[in-house]
Amino acid sequence: MSTLVLLRHGESVWNAEGLFTGWVDVDLSEKGEEEARRGGKLLLDAGVRPDVLHTSLLKRAIRTANIALSAADLHWLPVKRSWRLNERHYGALQGKDKAQTRAEYGDEQFMTWRRSYDTPPPPLADDAEFSQAGEVRYGTLPPELLPRTECLADVVDRMLPYWYDAIVPDLAAGRTVLVAAHGNSLRALVKHLDDIDDATIAGLNIPTGIPLVYDLNEDFTPRKTGGEYLDPEAAKDAIEAVKNQGK
Amino acid sequence: MSTLVLLRHGESVWNAEGLFTGWVDVDLSEKGEEEARRGGKLLLDAGVRPDVLHTSLLKRAIRTANIALSAADLHWLPVKRSWRLNERHYGALQGKDKAQTRAEYGDEQFMTWRRSYDTPPPPLADDAEFSQAGEVRYGTLPPELLPRTECLADVVDRMLPYWYDAIVPDLAAGRTVLVAAHGNSLRALVKHLDDIDDATIAGLNIPTGIPLVYDLNEDFTPRKTGGEYLDPEAAKDAIEAVKNQGK
Repeated sequence: MSTLVLLRHGESVWNAEGLFTGWVDVDLSEKGEEEARRGGKLLLDAGVRPDVLHTSLLKRAIRTANIALSAADLHWLPVKRSWRLNERHYGALQGKDKAQTRAEYGDEQFMTWRRSYDTPPPPLADDAEFSQAGEVRYGTLPPELLPRTECLADVVDRMLPYWYDAIVPDLAAGRTVLVAAHGNSLRALVKHLDDIDDATIAGLNIPTGIPLVYDLNEDFTPRKTGGEYLDPEAAKDAIEAVKNQGK
Repeated sequence: MSTLVLLRHGESVWNAEGLFTGWVDVDLSEKGEEEARRGGKLLLDAGVRPDVLHTSLLKRAIRTANIALSAADLHWLPVKRSWRLNERHYGALQGKDKAQTRAEYGDEQFMTWRRSYDTPPPPLADDAEFSQAGEVRYGTLPPELLPRTECLADVVDRMLPYWYDAIVPDLAAGRTVLVAAHGNSLRALVKHLDDIDDATIAGLNIPTGIPLVYDLNEDFTPRKTGGEYLDPEAAKDAIEAVKNQGK
């Protein structure tokens, strides 16, 4: 049996301002830093001690992990990072105001872009302001691999190789694995773990900063569907708050 | 040709209080955090962009690297950590006041413990207050590998395998490598790089928070002996300050 801990980054500056972020490398807000500290304390209080950390390449996830692990006195954990754990690329919506986009395109189009499993927003041009094309951190990715927009199905496709090739081997070695990532890369992982169908995943929200713990069977399926949040009450409230974004 | 950047952690709380630290996991002081930020800005201003980070398992080095890389917008770098980059284990002196130790044992014994190449302080008992025996982060080291005290010669012996097995391969792959570590693990590395004899290394001090850059030949020897500090004036002043510790 092994243990997987999922941690969605705390509030970012753009979350607070209601902008679509995606791959734009926005920092945590002060509230986000506080959420990260609380996440670390929840781990400590619950006696859940990760052996290894996996993060995306985006600073809001990396800093959430650093702050949480500092709070749990585990700053020294081995770390692996991958673009495959990045947030969903939001295409041409990156940098746009959520409420304004909702007003401009209407509720249906807005919710399709946010929640449809297989409809990505329009792609972002490589020379657009909020494009990541040419960023040195993605310099080892051939151009055809770098997303210009993604739907959740795309995130599942590019995340799963990392699950199988990097995370599962750590779990198989008996390690407790902490994954610090994003709303949609974690939804993609939870969809896989809990075998959630394409329609149902639309209604699943993961709150920020609250560790979600999965005890896994030998075949890496969850012993309990949905895992367990370390602070279930706070998780419930936070899930409601996420649902109301862009309203 | 490849580039190696050495960064000694900023001032720790115990540096500020004049205590021997060694393997005790003391955090940075506010001044130390500021030094780390300055280190990151010096990298940025000099256009020195590391591709990969190596750290010890101690938070003052890890946090120095995190803060410096945040300042240089390079928080996403791949990271490797090893106990082999830890500070010299100070044995029974860990947690003791430097000035008091000097007064108690006299200048000669004090300087022997601080600077002798091959005389370690008395060993620290596993059940002593400031022992690291039993710490989970060293749980994969067999008991005979965990130091109870070290002289600089011991640090060279346990650091070099990491240089050859982990850092050199990154350099050989053409990467610019940042090593965030400690006064004595970096002195051990510099001794090796610059081929400094056992007597001369006693007089070599490495200032905190100022990146020391070595351009290396194909055989990983320095193109210029001693490398280059990114802020040579500040380095000179800081080296003087280190010399005066415990006075």
